[in-house]
Amino acid sequence: MTEHTSPNNESAESGSAQHDTVKNGNAENHAAERGTAERGTAERGKLTPSRRELFGMIGAGAAGIAVGAAGGAAAQTALSGGFDDNRVDTVHGVVPFEGEHQAGITTEAQDRMHFASFELNRATSREDLIQLLKDWTTAARALTQGKDIGDGAVDGALLLPPDDTGEAHDLGAANLTLTFGFGRTLFADKKSGQSVIADPYGLRSKLPKEFEELPLFAFDLIDDAISGGDLCVQACADDPQVAVHAIRNLSRIAFGKARIKWTQLGFGRTSSTSRSQKTPRNLFGFKDGTASIKSDEAEKLKDFVWIQKGDKTPDYLVGGTYLVARKIQMTIEIWDRQHLNEQQRVIGRTKGEGAPLSGSTEFETPNFKALNPDGSPVIDVDAHVRLAHSSNNQGVELLRRGYNYVDGSNELGQLNAGLFFITFQNDPAKFVQVQGNLKSDLLNEYIRHIGSSLWLVPPGVRPGEYIGQRIFEA
Amino acid sequence: MTEHTSPNNESAESGSAQHDTVKNGNAENHAAERGTAERGTAERGKLTPSRRELFGMIGAGAAGIAVGAAGGAAAQTALSGGFDDNRVDTVHGVVPFEGEHQAGITTEAQDRMHFASFELNRATSREDLIQLLKDWTTAARALTQGKDIGDGAVDGALLLPPDDTGEAHDLGAANLTLTFGFGRTLFADKKSGQSVIADPYGLRSKLPKEFEELPLFAFDLIDDAISGGDLCVQACADDPQVAVHAIRNLSRIAFGKARIKWTQLGFGRTSSTSRSQKTPRNLFGFKDGTASIKSDEAEKLKDFVWIQKGDKTPDYLVGGTYLVARKIQMTIEIWDRQHLNEQQRVIGRTKGEGAPLSGSTEFETPNFKALNPDGSPVIDVDAHVRLAHSSNNQGVELLRRGYNYVDGSNELGQLNAGLFFITFQNDPAKFVQVQGNLKSDLLNEYIRHIGSSLWLVPPGVRPGEYIGQRIFEA
Repeated sequence: MTEHTSPNNESAESGSAQHDTVKNGNAENHAAERGTAERGTAERGKLTPSRRELFGMIGAGAAGIAVGAAGGAAAQTALSGGFDDNRVDTVHGVVPFEGEHQAGITTEAQDRMHFASFELNRATSREDLIQLLKDWTTAARALTQGKDIGDGAVDGALLLPPDDTGEAHDLGAANLTLTFGFGRTLFADKKSGQSVIADPYGLRSKLPKEFEELPLFAFDLIDDAISGGDLCVQACADDPQVAVHAIRNLSRIAFGKARIKWTQLGFGRTSSTSRSQKTPRNLFGFKDGTASIKSDEAEKLKDFVWIQKGDKTPDYLVGGTYLVARKIQMTIEIWDRQHLNEQQRVIGRTKGEGAPLSGSTEFETPNFKALNPDGSPVIDVDAHVRLAHSSNNQGVELLRRGYNYVDGSNELGQLNAGLFFITFQNDPAKFVQVQGNLKSDLLNEYIRHIGSSLWLVPPGVRPGEYIGQRIFEA
Repeated sequence: MTEHTSPNNESAESGSAQHDTVKNGNAENHAAERGTAERGTAERGKLTPSRRELFGMIGAGAAGIAVGAAGGAAAQTALSGGFDDNRVDTVHGVVPFEGEHQAGITTEAQDRMHFASFELNRATSREDLIQLLKDWTTAARALTQGKDIGDGAVDGALLLPPDDTGEAHDLGAANLTLTFGFGRTLFADKKSGQSVIADPYGLRSKLPKEFEELPLFAFDLIDDAISGGDLCVQACADDPQVAVHAIRNLSRIAFGKARIKWTQLGFGRTSSTSRSQKTPRNLFGFKDGTASIKSDEAEKLKDFVWIQKGDKTPDYLVGGTYLVARKIQMTIEIWDRQHLNEQQRVIGRTKGEGAPLSGSTEFETPNFKALNPDGSPVIDVDAHVRLAHSSNNQGVELLRRGYNYVDGSNELGQLNAGLFFITFQNDPAKFVQVQGNLKSDLLNEYIRHIGSSLWLVPPGVRPGEYIGQRIFEA
């Protein structure tokens, strides 16, 4: 097992050391290896917002950025999931925050997610929004390197609230990625009581033509309270406390400008974004995401995921994408009482291997024309795999990156659980094509779509840029 | 890093192979090394309940118990948290289910928890309850070895619902422990509409004299819907999907006899139960559980945790303990706005190192007599560490094993988050002593106790026994 040098495997005194430990295997890094100089390059300057920038207070002396005083010589143990005795992350690396694209999309899917939707406050101006995005970007640069934000959790002035809440103080980066998205509401007029503020952020003219809200699909039972929002942050990491810490501190930074609308915790990623990851299982016990686009499929990423340069495409979108999030409640108890044959018929795959019912192994293309001896199709005409397959959707494929969720139990003792389904595509219409085709999906009997959201994910940032800067300045 | 052979690193065909891979470092195993023959010995016979036992159906042919068809030769990667390419658990082992004591108490604290409280149905009889405990015990023997229950998720009959729901099919044991507890209601009369069923389970005469419900403490804001219950199961594992899978399948087995009253998911264990684990941080950013009893402190375990043989102690309790669970909501946003000095004054420890404010390092005994130059105590008279310390509680120490929780956000955008505090003690009065002493705790301003539960944890099972058998048969 390769061991990366931990980014916080240093003494508390070595404040400004740079961390070059980088996770291999993510798309950004691959791109950097192919020679795209601007990608994967950590900013060498200031990494964290000052207290003044964050809270507008009089700052204390600029203490070094201390990131855990863990003793690197401690004996290692195999018992705590890749952490040594001092919970220094010896296994997981750092995913570069900067790049042509935002991280957390083709990045090898981490095991845990904390997703947050934010609403801007009524009085938040264009300048406030830009300042928030600057502060978030600065914080994200630090957090994704496993650093505390600002003056840190324990090294700031004693008579000021710490800049960082501290619960991830010695947990390392754990491959944290932070992926930011813009809701369509940022580009639209804003209702404020009885009145309407026209174009509050000066972005109306920047609205991409394809950025239309998702339609209501058959069987949708959407709850507005867990749908949409002005901004979103997808935090993924291999340690849930690292992801929770990131969202919590970004939320603190937003105080006075934006507030959390809803959040979602997820675990056990359901889709693999690289072929080196085994396809995980969803809460129906089936492998989920077999046919998802993988990070090494450059042509497909170009065709389906990243917004490309084009005659009519504004430059500020190139390298961006759209994030669709659908909270899909599973009627677990009903599913669990179906017989294995029925479960496999609904999905169109075997439960164990995940192979199409037409035979072979997991990654074999399903043969939708295969017939049983009685002439009926081997893969049901309404099986999920058939209706969702690219060959039945004008060739459209999706990059899926969802997570299982369990929100406890309801008053009947049933699990509040399901799939927080996430896809990335360069045009929302691609998702609409596939979802619209699932109208007769046998799976609809066992699921309910209860949350639905769409965000524009701006391209990744270059050194010195803030998230979405090109949209504001174009 | 030591790598244990994975329990599911075998082909799907090798159904009945025994798994001897055992996690080192837990108390049961230490005990076994000291020669207690009955402990740590896996039952060599039947490990899983048959379909008939579980559901009273006509069983299909007894297929072998398949536990993942992962290819053991797959290249390993450092990117997925101790799992190799096929998500075979190469790091974590198996914690023995059987022993003098139940596992999950002195077992080195795993990273994730799913806790469930069950209520027995109105019509459930003593015989039903015993059958449920037998079925749970059989399932627990399989689950804690990383096996599917019964005929498994994919190898049962095609025309029957699978015995196992399958979402942990290839995840290994991930150090799963299942710890079962009996509520005081099992020993009492039962209200049923207008009438009362006297002693429904025939256990009234077995009620231990010390088993009194917890009193209401100062500042308690207890919600009955997330407190108590007839039975509890604490599932801990290093993979959340493994813990969730265990509770879900135990709940399925209980169908018709008991149902979930409430559940709690936790992550980032807050207390270390061994000195080889770094003390983790709670959501206030402070190390939590520094003074907790450790698994190698044999005398303290005897004095404070395990019920001992005694003139008046029934034999069926010896080796058992009591589990206290308190759901402690943290008013995160208020805490985050306190200055570092105030946070440290409230706790009585430094935020970085976790050392007492009286000096030295984390595990140094606090000097409560130390004075500042102005004559005031260095550790505030109402600091949490002072009021909770054994020296101020008639010598009482607690074995703590809590987990952080985040239940999303409330309608104000604030985190629904805090600490799911768990202690184990051989007399509930020990917890009452310490909690009662926290009346003037400075921390009370930042927390709310919203759930409160107490269960008797029967001793561990011997081969062939079911959980709690000695209580029923005494």
